[in-house]
Amino acid sequence: MKILVVGATGTIGKAIVSKLEQEQHTIITASRKESDVTVDMTSVTSIQAMYEQVGKIDALVVAAGSAYFGPLTTMTPENNEQSIEGKLKGQMNLVLLGLEHLNDGGSFTLVTGIMMDDPIKEGASAAMVNGGIRAFVKSAAIEMPRSIRINSVSPNVLQESWDKYSDFFVGFNPVPVEKVAQAFVKSVLGGQTGQNYEVY
Amino acid sequence: MKILVVGATGTIGKAIVSKLEQEQHTIITASRKESDVTVDMTSVTSIQAMYEQVGKIDALVVAAGSAYFGPLTTMTPENNEQSIEGKLKGQMNLVLLGLEHLNDGGSFTLVTGIMMDDPIKEGASAAMVNGGIRAFVKSAAIEMPRSIRINSVSPNVLQESWDKYSDFFVGFNPVPVEKVAQAFVKSVLGGQTGQNYEVY
Ligand SMILES: NC(=O)c1ccc[n+]([C@@H]2O[C@H](COP(=O)([O-])OP(=O)(O)OC[C@H]3O[C@@H](n4cnc5c(N)ncnc54)[C@H](OP(=O)(O)O)[C@@H]3O)[C@@H](O)[C@H]2O)c1
Ligand SMILES: NC(=O)c1ccc[n+]([C@@H]2O[C@H](COP(=O)([O-])OP(=O)(O)OC[C@H]3O[C@@H](n4cnc5c(N)ncnc54)[C@H](OP(=O)(O)O)[C@@H]3O)[C@@H](O)[C@H]2O)c1
Repeated sequence: MKILVVGATGTIGKAIVSKLEQEQHTIITASRKESDVTVDMTSVTSIQAMYEQVGKIDALVVAAGSAYFGPLTTMTPENNEQSIEGKLKGQMNLVLLGLEHLNDGGSFTLVTGIMMDDPIKEGASAAMVNGGIRAFVKSAAIEMPRSIRINSVSPNVLQESWDKYSDFFVGFNPVPVEKVAQAFVKSVLGGQTGQNYEVY
Repeated sequence: MKILVVGATGTIGKAIVSKLEQEQHTIITASRKESDVTVDMTSVTSIQAMYEQVGKIDALVVAAGSAYFGPLTTMTPENNEQSIEGKLKGQMNLVLLGLEHLNDGGSFTLVTGIMMDDPIKEGASAAMVNGGIRAFVKSAAIEMPRSIRINSVSPNVLQESWDKYSDFFVGFNPVPVEKVAQAFVKSVLGGQTGQNYEVY
C-alpha cells in the first residue's frame, strides 16, 4: 500500500510510520518541514499541491493538528478560531480534497483526542474540534464512494508527551504512543469504517 | 427569570418561548428580523451589540443555526465553511461573549441534532457542527464561573418540519416540537450542567 502520513515527523506520526514500514508499506511523509512532501494543512492550496505531487494513494493518515488551550473565561472568538483553523478544517479539507486521489478501497484516518470525553480545564476549544471530527467521520463514512473507509483515533495523553502536558491532564493515566500507533494501523489495514478508536 | 432566546421566531424557538412564558418568565426574543432584539449570530459585533442592548440576563437559549447539506463527494471547503459560520462559531461566540452578561447561577442552552449520532446522507458537515457543540458544552461546563451552567439539546427531526426534511430523514420517527421545547425548559430551570439532552 502507498500511504501518505501528514504529521509524520511528530510524536504520534513517527510511531505510525515505523509500524507501517515494518509491514512493508510505502510511506510518504508530509509536514511543514523535514518530510518527503511539504504541506501546511491549514491551507487549501497547499493541500491541493500535496495531492498533485503525490499522485494516487491507498491511505491518508493524519497525525497533525493544533488547537487552542486556555481558560474558558478569557477565551476569545479569535482564540477559538485557532482550533478551527489548526485542527478542524485542516483535517476535513484533507478528506474533501483527497477523495479523488484515493484508490478504490482506500482509507482516511483522522485524529481526535480524549478531552472530548473526559474534559480538562482550558480544553473546551480543543474538545470542540475532537467532537466535530468524530461526528464528521461517523457521518462521512456512510457516503464514501468506491468502498473508501474513514475512521479516527482518539488518543489519551501520551507517556511520551507527559512532561509537556501533565499539568493539564491531572489524574490521567498516560498511554504509550505505540498503542496509539496500533489503532492507526487497525484503521488503515483493517476493514472497519465510521469508527473512532479510543485509546484510553 | 430574564431569558434571552436567539432564534425565538423559528419552529423550535416559538415552542420554547410559549412554554417559558407560561411559567411567568420574562422572555426577550432575538433573531435577524421580527424579534425584540435584532441579532445575526454569525457576526461578533452583532452579538456584542445584542448583549449590550439587553443587559444582564439569567439565561441564554439558542434555537438557531444553519448548516450545509449536500453530498460528501461534491462538498467543498467553502460549503463546509457555511456550517462553521452558520451554526458552530455563532453558538460558541454567544457563550464566549455572553459569559460576563449572565447573572450568577445563570445558564446557556445550545442546540445540536440527532444526525451526529444517527447519520444521514448529505449530512456530514452538519453532523460535524453538532458533535463540536456537544463536546464544547461538556468541556466548557467544568470551567463555568459563578455557578453558571451550560447544556445542549439534540432534537430528532421534528413532526413540524417533516414536510421539509422527510426525504433526508428516511426511516426516522419525527418528534413533536413540544417535546424538544420541554428539554430546553429542563436545561434552563433545572440544575444539571454539561449535558446534551437527546430528544430522539
Ligand atoms: N501528544 C498527545 O499526548 C496527544 C494526545 C491526544 C491527541 N493528540 C493529537 O494528535 C495529533 C498529533 O500530536 P503529536 O503530539 O504527535 O504532535 P507533534 O509531536 O507536535 O507533531 C505534530 C506533527 O504535525 C506536523 N504539523 C503541525 N502543524 C502542521 C500543519 N499546519 N500542516 C501539516 N503538518 C503539521 C508537525 O510537523 P511540522 O511542524 O514540520 O509541520 C509534526 O509532524 C494532534 O492533533 C494532537 O492534538 C496528541
Ligand atoms: N427542525 C428540525 O427538525 C430540527 C431538528 C434537529 C435540529 N434542529 C436545529 O434546531 C435549530 C432551529 O431549527 P428550527 O427548525 O427551529 O429553525 P427555523 O424554524 O428555521 O428557525 C430558525 C430561527 O433562527 C433565526 N436565525 C436564523 N439565522 C440566524 C442568524 N444568523 N442569527 C440569528 N438568528 C437566526 C431565525 O430567524 P431569522 O431568520 O429572522 O434570523 C429563526 O428565529 C437549528 O440549529 C436546527 O439545525 C432542527
